[in-house]
Amino acid sequence: MMTGGNSIQPMTGDGPQPAGAIPFDIRPIAYVLGLLIAALGMTMIVPMAMDLIDGSDHAGVFIESGLITVVFGGLIALATRNSPRDNLSIQQIFLMTTSVWLVLPLFAALPFMVGATEADFTDAFFESMSGLTTTGSTVFTGLETLPRGLLLWRSMLQWFGGVGIVVTGMVFLPELRVGGMQIFRIESFETEGKILPRAAQIAARISVIYILLTSACFFAYLMVGMDGFQALNHALTTLSTGGFSTSDASFGAFSGPAEYVAALFMILASLPFVRFVQLMAGHYAPLWQDSQVRTFLRLTAALIVIVTAYRLLGSNEAFEPVFREAVFNIASIITGTGYASVDYQLWGAFAVMLFFLMGLVGGCAGSTCCSVKIFRYQLLFSSIKSQIGKIHSPHGVFIPRYNGRPVGPDVLSSVMAFFLVFIVTLGVLSVLLSMTGLDFVTSVSGAATAVANIGPGLGEIIGPAGNFAPLNDTAKWLLCLGMLMGRLEMLTVFALMSPVFWRN
Amino acid sequence: MMTGGNSIQPMTGDGPQPAGAIPFDIRPIAYVLGLLIAALGMTMIVPMAMDLIDGSDHAGVFIESGLITVVFGGLIALATRNSPRDNLSIQQIFLMTTSVWLVLPLFAALPFMVGATEADFTDAFFESMSGLTTTGSTVFTGLETLPRGLLLWRSMLQWFGGVGIVVTGMVFLPELRVGGMQIFRIESFETEGKILPRAAQIAARISVIYILLTSACFFAYLMVGMDGFQALNHALTTLSTGGFSTSDASFGAFSGPAEYVAALFMILASLPFVRFVQLMAGHYAPLWQDSQVRTFLRLTAALIVIVTAYRLLGSNEAFEPVFREAVFNIASIITGTGYASVDYQLWGAFAVMLFFLMGLVGGCAGSTCCSVKIFRYQLLFSSIKSQIGKIHSPHGVFIPRYNGRPVGPDVLSSVMAFFLVFIVTLGVLSVLLSMTGLDFVTSVSGAATAVANIGPGLGEIIGPAGNFAPLNDTAKWLLCLGMLMGRLEMLTVFALMSPVFWRN
Repeated sequence: MMTGGNSIQPMTGDGPQPAGAIPFDIRPIAYVLGLLIAALGMTMIVPMAMDLIDGSDHAGVFIESGLITVVFGGLIALATRNSPRDNLSIQQIFLMTTSVWLVLPLFAALPFMVGATEADFTDAFFESMSGLTTTGSTVFTGLETLPRGLLLWRSMLQWFGGVGIVVTGMVFLPELRVGGMQIFRIESFETEGKILPRAAQIAARISVIYILLTSACFFAYLMVGMDGFQALNHALTTLSTGGFSTSDASFGAFSGPAEYVAALFMILASLPFVRFVQLMAGHYAPLWQDSQVRTFLRLTAALIVIVTAYRLLGSNEAFEPVFREAVFNIASIITGTGYASVDYQLWGAFAVMLFFLMGLVGGCAGSTCCSVKIFRYQLLFSSIKSQIGKIHSPHGVFIPRYNGRPVGPDVLSSVMAFFLVFIVTLGVLSVLLSMTGLDFVTSVSGAATAVANIGPGLGEIIGPAGNFAPLNDTAKWLLCLGMLMGRLEMLTVFALMSPVFWRN
Repeated sequence: MMTGGNSIQPMTGDGPQPAGAIPFDIRPIAYVLGLLIAALGMTMIVPMAMDLIDGSDHAGVFIESGLITVVFGGLIALATRNSPRDNLSIQQIFLMTTSVWLVLPLFAALPFMVGATEADFTDAFFESMSGLTTTGSTVFTGLETLPRGLLLWRSMLQWFGGVGIVVTGMVFLPELRVGGMQIFRIESFETEGKILPRAAQIAARISVIYILLTSACFFAYLMVGMDGFQALNHALTTLSTGGFSTSDASFGAFSGPAEYVAALFMILASLPFVRFVQLMAGHYAPLWQDSQVRTFLRLTAALIVIVTAYRLLGSNEAFEPVFREAVFNIASIITGTGYASVDYQLWGAFAVMLFFLMGLVGGCAGSTCCSVKIFRYQLLFSSIKSQIGKIHSPHGVFIPRYNGRPVGPDVLSSVMAFFLVFIVTLGVLSVLLSMTGLDFVTSVSGAATAVANIGPGLGEIIGPAGNFAPLNDTAKWLLCLGMLMGRLEMLTVFALMSPVFWRN
């Protein structure tokens, strides 16, 4: 619409295709999807077992949903098992990445439709998309009254989503050169070779760390007074920076110490997982020297100080609860987890604005976090600095650096394109949400919370004390789209929609 | 704050200084400022004459203010008249551009403090900054009861500001390579040589067009029923896309046809003035072939259709008033003029959102418009397209084009840096405004209306039916800062604050 009169002219044809690639052969994609669907179905044994232990006849829901899912996924995988998977084309990788995040939520939604929530398709898909993308927005209320198997299923979805995000961020996005993620290409382990075996290998190594951290979080929650079921669910949704809870009151239902534990593990889950792998091998330096880690921790600490000071100045509240609420809620929003312990909208207009913008920051690349992410802001600011340098000395050469390495102009344009698409997506989604009749604050913050995969928005309806249930179906589908786009770092979806991308 | 661990390394020293430049010699800057201040003071004869004709003793206000201003400016110019002005350094041009927009409002504010409005310094400065930057936000109410000289002074400030913007945008910003404006460097006439004589020459040629268009607008307003005074004031504030009115009701006070006239001239004032110069020389092609003109007109037309359709669907309102209100209000906001005829917030949530985002578009470069501007969106979208192309063919070369000419990576980074700084400025200003206690909508829309130099914001306080008077002083000063930054295309102010820029 805006580009009339301008054109992009490819100068060297269509570029080389990877040898042996067969574009538009969707069988390898179907095979991977089939395997993942079948695997998802098999994990339904866990909530089924939970319901059986509870003596609830709700267990049948998971047997039914699980059978459908396993059979469906298994048949697809079986039918496509002989497809060539050695050299996937860029188009195939794109389509695979997108369809995984689009199709898995369909099957993950089954228990919500068949089960005690008796949700219609829209609500079930919304909840399952919100789960797998680790957004954490919910349309269900009366969580305490739901069968425990169903609550566990919600938490498990976020936990699976968390692994998926790390693998997507470490393997697929760098390969696709999306949003500057290519700078993490070299440092994602030393693994080389075909993309699918590499993804499986990295997923395995990451899972060890992920399970260890989740276990540590589980025991920590037990120690601060949660029961086993609460500790398990919250450990799953903390490490995935997801934010689903077992209670409508979210962390409002738990004691003070639980908030500190949650804050600690939410922040750990926002650090690059590759650093933990190095840590386990005895290499401490890469973690402390990682500039996105340092910047993220500094920024979080600064925000905690600012919000605490803002609330203490001119009030006679005690230090501890104010400090704790700041630590917990800032960690929750900046990491995109989305737990709430209080309605921070009551802290005043300044806090509302700050929490809104905080959600647009996000954690480190290679973690379970979403949103714009710290390293992109670092690169953007570096780029502005070099622009200012160029204004001063038009013939000087200014090379932005990241983590000590020079950053090429390709990466910078890629990051800037990401930022632009992010802002434009926010704008367009806000407009579309407002067309469904939602007010300004709900539309803008709803768009932001979806695209940045946070959880709560602002205002009375979808704020930290609210719920997404009252929204109409159109708004829910728009938010699902936003969550998907946010999770896929925007450009994947844009590229799929672009004629340039499909031209061959 | 966000750039810890990253550094910009200048590789070739500080770059060549223009021959003969004496950095930090502020005398040439003081000389230009002095001349402009004295000139501003002399124009106070006009509102003085107006008050004398009306037989009002308010004329003394302008004699007093005018004398102070002329003497002050004259003395400065006299004291620095022998300063070297042939080769200004980049730092000097920066400082000059910024200080013109900072110092002139100080003197322009005098009549508001001494005169019938009896404004305090904050209100007077706010009104005069809002005037000269052609923003159009006002803190005064009961406009109909003010002496006509004072109303005329407000309108004149916007009209002067309009010329200033065109000259700044055609001469100074391209020279400073700010925000991609360097692409307009070549086409800004064929004038070459020293910057100050060139600025004066372009100002003179632009003024002819500007006066012709203003006169046409004046007569058109007369024809649709305005009296001479109303027509004069609104012609001055229409061509400058300023938006001050002679009535609290703005265009709510005038007939339907006046709205169409206003829309026509607001849109004309948003086109690149260099095209009108070419038009007068008989060259029609450059105007019709200018891609920013075509995109701007198409987008405006599309928005008018959308808003009209949105309001007509599901209502039984008549076509004409709905269409007219859409034409007028969309033209008013997208050009950043800021007149209002109705409270478009009553059209529903969708309209509110759309008008908010529309203000972030802006007209063409080289016009009196502000905000991000159409050409930057065109370049940004071109850049995204080429990013997508690169994802598809990593070794392909994709060169974005603008108006048929290839655009270098330097220009693209410059535009992206502008966009980023614009968004960050909006965010920071929103946070600061919310710290003064303003609600979310008022803070966000207040920041946007200031930085994009529009006029009205959203919400009950500063919306199209509201006024900026109820804001506290801190908020008003923050908005003044926003207007200044918006007017100077952001980077000038950033550069002045940057140590890199001042290092020598």
